[in-house]
Amino acid sequence: MLKIFGMEMIRILLPLLLFIISTKISFSQTDKISDYISVADTITKTALRDRKGYDWLKELCEIGPRLSGSENSMKAILWAKNKMTELGFDSVWLQPVMVPHWERGNKEFCAIYNDKIMIKKLEVLALGGSVSTPENGIEANVIEIKSFDELKQKASEVKGKIVFFNRPIDQGMTNTFAGYGSAVDQRVYGAIEAAKYGAIGVVIRSVTTKFDNVPHAGVMLYVDSLPRIPAAAIGYLDSDFLSEQLKLNPGLVLKLRMNCRTLEDTQSFNVIGEIRGKEFSEEIVVVGGHFDSWDVGCGAHDDGAGCIQSIEVLDLFKRLNIKPKRTIRCVLFINEENGSRGGIEYGKLAASSSEKHIAAIEADRGAFTPVGFNVDSDSITINKISTWLPILEKASIEWVKKGGSGVDVSKIKNAKALLGFVPDDQRYMDVHHSANDVFEEVHPREFELGAAAITVMVYLLSEEGL
Amino acid sequence: MLKIFGMEMIRILLPLLLFIISTKISFSQTDKISDYISVADTITKTALRDRKGYDWLKELCEIGPRLSGSENSMKAILWAKNKMTELGFDSVWLQPVMVPHWERGNKEFCAIYNDKIMIKKLEVLALGGSVSTPENGIEANVIEIKSFDELKQKASEVKGKIVFFNRPIDQGMTNTFAGYGSAVDQRVYGAIEAAKYGAIGVVIRSVTTKFDNVPHAGVMLYVDSLPRIPAAAIGYLDSDFLSEQLKLNPGLVLKLRMNCRTLEDTQSFNVIGEIRGKEFSEEIVVVGGHFDSWDVGCGAHDDGAGCIQSIEVLDLFKRLNIKPKRTIRCVLFINEENGSRGGIEYGKLAASSSEKHIAAIEADRGAFTPVGFNVDSDSITINKISTWLPILEKASIEWVKKGGSGVDVSKIKNAKALLGFVPDDQRYMDVHHSANDVFEEVHPREFELGAAAITVMVYLLSEEGL
Repeated sequence: MLKIFGMEMIRILLPLLLFIISTKISFSQTDKISDYISVADTITKTALRDRKGYDWLKELCEIGPRLSGSENSMKAILWAKNKMTELGFDSVWLQPVMVPHWERGNKEFCAIYNDKIMIKKLEVLALGGSVSTPENGIEANVIEIKSFDELKQKASEVKGKIVFFNRPIDQGMTNTFAGYGSAVDQRVYGAIEAAKYGAIGVVIRSVTTKFDNVPHAGVMLYVDSLPRIPAAAIGYLDSDFLSEQLKLNPGLVLKLRMNCRTLEDTQSFNVIGEIRGKEFSEEIVVVGGHFDSWDVGCGAHDDGAGCIQSIEVLDLFKRLNIKPKRTIRCVLFINEENGSRGGIEYGKLAASSSEKHIAAIEADRGAFTPVGFNVDSDSITINKISTWLPILEKASIEWVKKGGSGVDVSKIKNAKALLGFVPDDQRYMDVHHSANDVFEEVHPREFELGAAAITVMVYLLSEEGL
Repeated sequence: MLKIFGMEMIRILLPLLLFIISTKISFSQTDKISDYISVADTITKTALRDRKGYDWLKELCEIGPRLSGSENSMKAILWAKNKMTELGFDSVWLQPVMVPHWERGNKEFCAIYNDKIMIKKLEVLALGGSVSTPENGIEANVIEIKSFDELKQKASEVKGKIVFFNRPIDQGMTNTFAGYGSAVDQRVYGAIEAAKYGAIGVVIRSVTTKFDNVPHAGVMLYVDSLPRIPAAAIGYLDSDFLSEQLKLNPGLVLKLRMNCRTLEDTQSFNVIGEIRGKEFSEEIVVVGGHFDSWDVGCGAHDDGAGCIQSIEVLDLFKRLNIKPKRTIRCVLFINEENGSRGGIEYGKLAASSSEKHIAAIEADRGAFTPVGFNVDSDSITINKISTWLPILEKASIEWVKKGGSGVDVSKIKNAKALLGFVPDDQRYMDVHHSANDVFEEVHPREFELGAAAITVMVYLLSEEGL
């Protein structure tokens, strides 16, 4: 009975509610929404047809990887400044940021031995921030560990050994960022945890969804209270191999040699370009990604794509002669990968400025087909942004949800809303932080549809405010 | 004022409505939905972790392409029958279908000449169903045409020439199936339209979203009242080249040679396997794709993937020991690409059977990340299926909409609901009907997430009925 009563009530009330909504819209907003949809359609078609950003991404990738503090990163910074200037943005400038400067040095060496006879060389990358080994490397027995709990249980067996953290991403998770989160503790904290029990080094299974042998880099941390031991990632297939060999011969020896090093902090820059708002120029909508990458591949998806999409947002306004009501600012943050100094520095600027940051969007999840936007704000603001879905869907956006924005824009504490652009994630962790992350892995339509989706969101924020 | 009134009314009524909905759910369905979500989660995790279907797709692709009537298609049919038998489905059988049998013959030749001097060989594929040229080929001047309207306007210039239909897919369309629809008339009806005005042959720009030079095949049609002239597709880049050359030299000559032919209709089969329902075994839920492909590449996305996903649906029931309430039937339809005979034949069986087909799902849009399901049914049924979204979202399904199902299942006229599985479409037309459509283009997680999404939908249809 209750079920029927419930259904009946819904049948009575739902049309009433829809009528109220439609009445409200028909008297105040139908024309505006229809105009917005038309603009969104034009933005999307233009991005997909012109493929301009996609061409710029190719130019950027040809410079090579852009690790903070590297010579290449400065080349890329100047390239971006020139590109924004050429495109005729109203202002283009560099915001100084001091960044950490870590270098990989020579190609690493890692191999396993049985009675001094080499079984196999393993594909390896030093983790970002790791200390080097001594010049001749380290060699020791290996203990395979799946979790920090297991490490603690086996504490007495760890001393003098190299810890092999071997827990893969859980492929069962639908969302690969969640999968990444299920395994990345080994990379970030592995050296700290292993050092607690006297390990002399750490190797980890690359944190990836792809069953190939390309090692994946990424940041790792130390604490001052514990010895700093070298840490490296080995290829997924070589991790399988090492695990199998350890079952056959627990006494095998792993040798690891790397001469990476941390240099003095280095002068670097956020690259910033903007188009001034014609009505509320002191209200700022930021759109950006991080311009540094790891030092393998060329950071095409992570996060060359998000940066170029952000540049293309402003260019699409110019190409289509859309004069924004509010100021649209593209910020390419330096040093997200190993320090977030660019984000922090921009956050300080935003906090001390007389300008009002109404919203900031981060694009740092790869250039795949758009799916949604995470919004970190109060519920009224999130609801307001949600009402734009019929417009955003022109660029393939399916949802707006409360959720985290991104590492860099989250430093802009005084913005009304922080948004994260969310594309499909199934392929992202295949390439992330590895030599797989190259221009050829970026699909032109997926890239441009992302640029369009972000542009439509920026356009609506500029027109409607928050 | 009206705006405020509207908003206020919504604020008052919305919680009331939500309360009624939640009350209804809490008394009658919460436990069931929660159980369903748990099953959906298990199905998804299992598919993503095991990657079984992905391995089977590799086996299938190793057989090669599967054009209707070909020897390879029979090898594939027997492979599928054996696979379903090995997997222990309750029944596995072949449904006889007579299919058209067209053969490409020797590799085609196409080149352009200036004063008998060859300018360039062009990448070319005869269109499916085309007649051959005479043994020495045809050669003639070329007239470039963008639409049938333009063809009509230039009717007097067509006689004795080869018509070059050169309208590309509109890349501005967000949905690539819509883009495909905007250009494919040239391939399907080009030879008919050109023959009306005395053309001796047709070449078309390949109907593709990819700017490479791999030609894309596909079906073309004739009518009895007009001469049957040979028709072929040329690569996208060679189409650009031909167009440029025609601007420089409208008198250039194109030579086309192909010896494709249509043979007698050939005996073929739909491959069918099922798991009998434990409660309503006479109620059938069909899931399937088409098992034939074009004769280049290996039909990995089109539609090897949809077929293997359909096999995996039944296997996931078995792997997880889920006994369906209703009968789950996997149908691999033969001959979708050039005749739909398999779909027609199965539709006849469904129409004459005492069994009741409650629903049929077609998977024929590639193995990309799942997005939604189109449902062709009455609004009450669509609404009912829409209420399953909180369960389906475990496998990345964002929406359920009224929409077309698919070529094959649409022949099952007496089913209560016909569904089409809709994955992301951005990359599909890059590979469709071409040598690009190979196993390596299928991503394991995207493929398995699709298999999971379809399995969850089949599971709910089996449990809930329609």
